[in-house]
Amino acid sequence: MVIVLKENPNPQQVNRLKNWLAEMNIDIHTIVGTQSTVLGLVGDTSGVDIELIRALDIVEDVKRIQEPFKRANRKFHPLDTVITIGDTKIGGGNFTLMAGPCSVESREQILSIARDVAANGGHILRGGAFKPRTSPYAFQGLRGLGIELLIEARKETGLKIVTEIMDISQLELFNDVDIIQVGARNMQNFELLKELGKSRKPILLKRGLSSTIQELLMSAEYIMAGGNENVILCERGIRTFETATRNTLDLSCVPVLKETSHLPVVIDPSHAVGVARYVYSMSLAAAAAGSDGLIIEVHNDPAHAMCDGAQSITPEAFGGLASKLSELLPVVGKSIGKTQN
Amino acid sequence: MVIVLKENPNPQQVNRLKNWLAEMNIDIHTIVGTQSTVLGLVGDTSGVDIELIRALDIVEDVKRIQEPFKRANRKFHPLDTVITIGDTKIGGGNFTLMAGPCSVESREQILSIARDVAANGGHILRGGAFKPRTSPYAFQGLRGLGIELLIEARKETGLKIVTEIMDISQLELFNDVDIIQVGARNMQNFELLKELGKSRKPILLKRGLSSTIQELLMSAEYIMAGGNENVILCERGIRTFETATRNTLDLSCVPVLKETSHLPVVIDPSHAVGVARYVYSMSLAAAAAGSDGLIIEVHNDPAHAMCDGAQSITPEAFGGLASKLSELLPVVGKSIGKTQN
Amino acid sequence: MVIVLKENPNPQQVNRLKNWLAEMNIDIHTIVGTQSTVLGLVGDTSGVDIELIRALDIVEDVKRIQEPFKRANRKFHPLDTVITIGDTKIGGGNFTLMAGPCSVESREQILSIARDVAANGGHILRGGAFKPRTSPYAFQGLRGLGIELLIEARKETGLKIVTEIMDISQLELFNDVDIIQVGARNMQNFELLKELGKSRKPILLKRGLSSTIQELLMSAEYIMAGGNENVILCERGIRTFETATRNTLDLSCVPVLKETSHLPVVIDPSHAVGVARYVYSMSLAAAAAGSDGLIIEVHNDPAHAMCDGAQSITPEAFGGLASKLSELLPVVGKSIGKTQN
Amino acid sequence: MVIVLKENPNPQQVNRLKNWLAEMNIDIHTIVGTQSTVLGLVGDTSGVDIELIRALDIVEDVKRIQEPFKRANRKFHPLDTVITIGDTKIGGGNFTLMAGPCSVESREQILSIARDVAANGGHILRGGAFKPRTSPYAFQGLRGLGIELLIEARKETGLKIVTEIMDISQLELFNDVDIIQVGARNMQNFELLKELGKSRKPILLKRGLSSTIQELLMSAEYIMAGGNENVILCERGIRTFETATRNTLDLSCVPVLKETSHLPVVIDPSHAVGVARYVYSMSLAAAAAGSDGLIIEVHNDPAHAMCDGAQSITPEAFGGLASKLSELLPVVGKSIGKTQN
Repeated sequence: MVIVLKENPNPQQVNRLKNWLAEMNIDIHTIVGTQSTVLGLVGDTSGVDIELIRALDIVEDVKRIQEPFKRANRKFHPLDTVITIGDTKIGGGNFTLMAGPCSVESREQILSIARDVAANGGHILRGGAFKPRTSPYAFQGLRGLGIELLIEARKETGLKIVTEIMDISQLELFNDVDIIQVGARNMQNFELLKELGKSRKPILLKRGLSSTIQELLMSAEYIMAGGNENVILCERGIRTFETATRNTLDLSCVPVLKETSHLPVVIDPSHAVGVARYVYSMSLAAAAAGSDGLIIEVHNDPAHAMCDGAQSITPEAFGGLASKLSELLPVVGKSIGKTQN
Repeated sequence: MVIVLKENPNPQQVNRLKNWLAEMNIDIHTIVGTQSTVLGLVGDTSGVDIELIRALDIVEDVKRIQEPFKRANRKFHPLDTVITIGDTKIGGGNFTLMAGPCSVESREQILSIARDVAANGGHILRGGAFKPRTSPYAFQGLRGLGIELLIEARKETGLKIVTEIMDISQLELFNDVDIIQVGARNMQNFELLKELGKSRKPILLKRGLSSTIQELLMSAEYIMAGGNENVILCERGIRTFETATRNTLDLSCVPVLKETSHLPVVIDPSHAVGVARYVYSMSLAAAAAGSDGLIIEVHNDPAHAMCDGAQSITPEAFGGLASKLSELLPVVGKSIGKTQN
Repeated sequence: MVIVLKENPNPQQVNRLKNWLAEMNIDIHTIVGTQSTVLGLVGDTSGVDIELIRALDIVEDVKRIQEPFKRANRKFHPLDTVITIGDTKIGGGNFTLMAGPCSVESREQILSIARDVAANGGHILRGGAFKPRTSPYAFQGLRGLGIELLIEARKETGLKIVTEIMDISQLELFNDVDIIQVGARNMQNFELLKELGKSRKPILLKRGLSSTIQELLMSAEYIMAGGNENVILCERGIRTFETATRNTLDLSCVPVLKETSHLPVVIDPSHAVGVARYVYSMSLAAAAAGSDGLIIEVHNDPAHAMCDGAQSITPEAFGGLASKLSELLPVVGKSIGKTQN
Repeated sequence: MVIVLKENPNPQQVNRLKNWLAEMNIDIHTIVGTQSTVLGLVGDTSGVDIELIRALDIVEDVKRIQEPFKRANRKFHPLDTVITIGDTKIGGGNFTLMAGPCSVESREQILSIARDVAANGGHILRGGAFKPRTSPYAFQGLRGLGIELLIEARKETGLKIVTEIMDISQLELFNDVDIIQVGARNMQNFELLKELGKSRKPILLKRGLSSTIQELLMSAEYIMAGGNENVILCERGIRTFETATRNTLDLSCVPVLKETSHLPVVIDPSHAVGVARYVYSMSLAAAAAGSDGLIIEVHNDPAHAMCDGAQSITPEAFGGLASKLSELLPVVGKSIGKTQN
């Protein structure tokens, strides 16, 4: 951490700051410049509240040199984290396909789609039981029943299941779910993150619409600080001025996350672009960029899906994509892993 | 709602769509253009899922003509909502000053600041008991104890109190709080909003960092749909590319919200700019723009505040601001309302 | 400037860097930390290319401590710049009203509006002769003739005139214009800025739609580096995700610019919000925020304006605004200056 | 185009609007709704100024149904445009590699890099002669001499050359250049675009930092409206809140542009991410997404490049990338085209 002092700072206040830092076992190197004095801090500064220092009268600016996250940091954990759920592996050279409808709508619907996903090479079934909807007047999900239907679909197809939690009070219902998803709108629901840190279940953590990559890693850190190291990061589009796609898929987060963190990174092209016919090319791009998997909306009747039909592809299109991915992935040194049939 | 069909749409599918809309008592006017056909829908379309229609094979685009919110809409409620808490009124020509520290840190701290806020013309004491912090290693608030201390400060000063809820499970602790704040990161925590809709307490709803004005109104609608009409909207800066200020204060939301909604609008310049020395001018600007109040961070020792000291002004600065506001507000037809002493 | 070196940097390369910096008369302070080594540079680093250093194999990051602009910097020029054009002053406590149509459309139109602007308290007449239009099929301005008509309007009303230049080749036509405007799309047309630096005419420099405040100051620096110190900065809305207004008016740039620069700052609420009925409140907010003036679109027949009618207010509305401003400005210590009648 | 009228509009004004539209040979279909009346316009509305209608007192909103661009529109030109420069083809299944330094720095430098680019599979040499730099104190390019050196490099290597124009006055110097680049900052320099429309040289049009995809197509339309159909579109990153990369590479523009336009689309990953070590994976992603080529910064001595060294890769890295691309492209049905050796 580097602290830039204002011109002619009060010497007593400077001393007080230095003593306070010294109490935290931080060494201070003072550089007297022509216009300003800079303090270089040496030691573990992850516990120092940068805002607190910025507030001091004598301080012009503070700049952090080291990342404020540790457990999610590749510097302290050089090897890729691989998350194992039965015979399915996520991360470390494996490429994982998660697919399914936006919402679980009925027993018939979810079983039918699950069979299609399994038959076309998917590994994990996605499907919303609790649905975050912008309008209070829109369909809010089958809730507990939706989770039961997912479990039934797993039983029949062997697919693992991932579904979104919206509130701590629902946690009990997720006991038999394989991966708990934290949606973009809850990425900074810190109370929920802390609670999930006490679990040992894999967490699929979606990046918030306007969250930086560093904030995504800080939210992963929240979960990991509780002892749960099984975090999967997920990019699903960020909010920008462009309106041709629903959000802007930030694929360059892949090399950035791969460099700074050891956690698996999956891409959700469906929510990012919001238009079914753009999902295919962005899925190939995500694979080529070095991601560890995809989470894609697939629906056997997109035109009658209860939500987000516009971005769902058909099972046939999903099969075609999986087949093309199995050609492309070896070029970038990835393998599509166990398929379900 | 206007539906633009693709060129040469399948006539059977068009008929199916028309019948489906007719079942919802919606009249359809068909306009056959040279390149595309447009369906104009007449009737109450607020229950029609726009995404569902967009997903249809025969549809090129759908455009909504009416706002998707009702209870928050000025069209159906032309007069300003005024929220009354004892002798304090929010909205409808009154200008309300909410002030206090980012966090409640200790009994001594909050009592001292509360006295200062009351003495300098504030109406409502703000102070965080539960703190959303980006880093799991930062101070997380005094929680239940923080709320008790706020209540004690109210008893002594007569100020009303507002503090932030972070999770449904905390709701019971807020029984004796005057206004419950929903923070920017929870603006789309829909489970929480639904729960708050069952309450009758005033809710201060902060706009999310990357939420549109319409999304803010939809979140207000969530609370109001449950029967709680006491919603106060709060702009606290949106996330943009600019880094000179922490966020970008979107003051033009004031005339937009005043036109489209009847709810009171308060501005939080402290979180928006993130720098204490810019708070004064942005507070005056907010008042001139037509807002109904301010929520400002005030700390008697900003340099040692446990969080966000950088954006806190001193009680003296707050007093100077309140005094200047009492000069400026009459120019725009507002009155600063009852002061506490 | 602070340079963070990578772990275990090649010592020869470090020496080469140090020698290269020493040649530029920069002192180097080395801080050896537990994980990284930091070089603190002391001296005039404004000539050091930060990207060049960032490219070095041994460098992890570089952070600039001082602003990269000098002539526009208040540190080296503490007093407000006041630009004088005849009896009109811009900056330094004066509040200047610039108003007029988006485009000069005809002799009759511009004379009529000019009379209205003068009668209602305006100081400077704005009007586009060269028009930047997104579509090649839209009206492109009266060009040379437009400037002649502005000059005629000045003759009759005594108002000063400001109009936009779009290309260096048009410069000759601006010889008799009082203020040359550089539009948002040309803020980083560096060849044009250099050419305007050779002039001594006041330049109204509009902030680009996605330009940071620092980039705006760097563009001012381009003009000033050529010797033309008469730069007026203008905020006219930045591009964000919000669509309720055309752009987002970033009023917090006012205290930021006032702190970092000595140049006058005027606000263009018309282009920022893009909706006539929001101009009034944002104009009052801009005045309260501490800006030095407004540039507002006024049209006597907004419904038939050839461009941007949606954001133009009528002369009557402008008169009402000017009158309200003359009440508000004394509260913030500004005076509306000479009025035209 | 669809016009939404306000409640109870003045019937005379409505008639005037209808007559005015009828004069432009536009048919009007009126839909009377419960709350508002909608006019559906049928005919060629590309000449109707949408802002003009929005300004009318009786109008609540206007929505455009058809894209405002024609010559760049795939609807009127279903087949891919293929641009041919000697033996090099751009678009239509060919994948083109453009590579070279940010700036032409010296005869030795550009010849050396040109040989490396040719030997490693590049087709077109890029290199800046005129350099848009944010700071007036930074290197501004070799200008005319730079173009001469590029021509010499073409002579020796057979590579075609592309370089950026910054002002109309420089046009003569570009007579012997193969492709003229319009930089992101000049994407809406309409005077320049009009002038380039008179040329028949291929134009590489870079998307502005905060320009929408539609605005990019409108700028292409400016050039094409002048008769120059040889436009190559280039995405080079847009400005967002994320700071981990210099800009955010919007790869989803590829399927959007491919659907709406017939023009070739190339990607500039170097400027988008701004960090050399992220260029490789984003190049592969761009190829997988369906783009028609890449423009990449390559420098034989990135650490001493005069500008933007941080984002330049070495010739060896470029060779490795070209080789990997020749594996990947056949998977997506593209061929890397003629290589230079």
